[in-house]
Amino acid sequence: MIFRYPNGKAYEPKEQARKKQQPSFTYSNRGMSLEEDLNETNKYYLEHKLAVIHKKPTPVQIVNVDYPRRSAAVIKEAYFKQSSTTDYNGIYRAKYIDFEAKETKNKTSFPLQNFHAHQIEHMQNVVKQGGVCFVILSAFNEFYYVKAEDLFIFWQRQQNGGRKSITIEEINKVGYKIPIGYQARIDYLKIIDKLYF
Amino acid sequence: MIFRYPNGKAYEPKEQARKKQQPSFTYSNRGMSLEEDLNETNKYYLEHKLAVIHKKPTPVQIVNVDYPRRSAAVIKEAYFKQSSTTDYNGIYRAKYIDFEAKETKNKTSFPLQNFHAHQIEHMQNVVKQGGVCFVILSAFNEFYYVKAEDLFIFWQRQQNGGRKSITIEEINKVGYKIPIGYQARIDYLKIIDKLYF
Repeated sequence: MIFRYPNGKAYEPKEQARKKQQPSFTYSNRGMSLEEDLNETNKYYLEHKLAVIHKKPTPVQIVNVDYPRRSAAVIKEAYFKQSSTTDYNGIYRAKYIDFEAKETKNKTSFPLQNFHAHQIEHMQNVVKQGGVCFVILSAFNEFYYVKAEDLFIFWQRQQNGGRKSITIEEINKVGYKIPIGYQARIDYLKIIDKLYF
Repeated sequence: MIFRYPNGKAYEPKEQARKKQQPSFTYSNRGMSLEEDLNETNKYYLEHKLAVIHKKPTPVQIVNVDYPRRSAAVIKEAYFKQSSTTDYNGIYRAKYIDFEAKETKNKTSFPLQNFHAHQIEHMQNVVKQGGVCFVILSAFNEFYYVKAEDLFIFWQRQQNGGRKSITIEEINKVGYKIPIGYQARIDYLKIIDKLYF
């Protein structure tokens, strides 16, 4: 069953979807989602005072709230709204950090339809302000860190009528493979250290 | 009617509450809420490429989603969760910005119960990472910018058994009055310019 935003785009409740879906390349043996891994990573960073980075809550338009008893309000009617920003942001070593995480089961390319125009525009604004902005792509059995500046080039190519995806060769060229750890599972700060410090 | 979080703390749906409530000092003649004014301010900053600062969505635990037709998913059961961070963050001139906005109708002091321990802890983590962290207080017919570092002192005083509020004299001493504008209604970037650039 697919839930859709008013604009017709599919909503995927990530953790639930993960548990039900066919085995994927990256997560097939683990029962964890990309979102869960990133939440654990960010939790580790926070607890060890390395960085303060959180996932933003899913935006919801609340229409009707019921109040059955003193202890709890129940939302009885609400709708998903599309976010106008990326999902993750925060601070690391005095730098503003902003990113989006996406995955594909494709074997040879990463579809650009994983991003929407508002997110790209947001990332462009962040880059203009001097932020550290990137996407984490889970694809081809790897986690890739791709700078927003590089993503914009592929997005622009699509806007100009070019291909609607990034090839595996292109990702291997512009992306940085993120080391996998036990505690910091998707240890993307390592890449930020390399690129900005 | 008061909605409560599972911990018993009152939830206030800010825009609705504003429309119903008794006239307050700051907003009595305007029909606008602090949240709306800040959203307009941030929108102005964004449109004029001055800063990229957004309010985070209200955190909601979604339990049940109905799917009556192809075009829209309806959330039928959900609960408010307490946020572990502040409501607003983003980037301005390469600096990480993080703040919370609160108001009181008290005439002589600002109650510290407007903040909760998780938010204070979050602000402490942000300050340690080198972020620009503060609170915007709507009180005594003014908007005040109070640095998180100053708020911590009053919070600590309360933890040590001291008074549970900040007096108007104290706020006038440590706080910066935020200029009110037509487009940037609560023009807090002006204070950041003064303090950090």
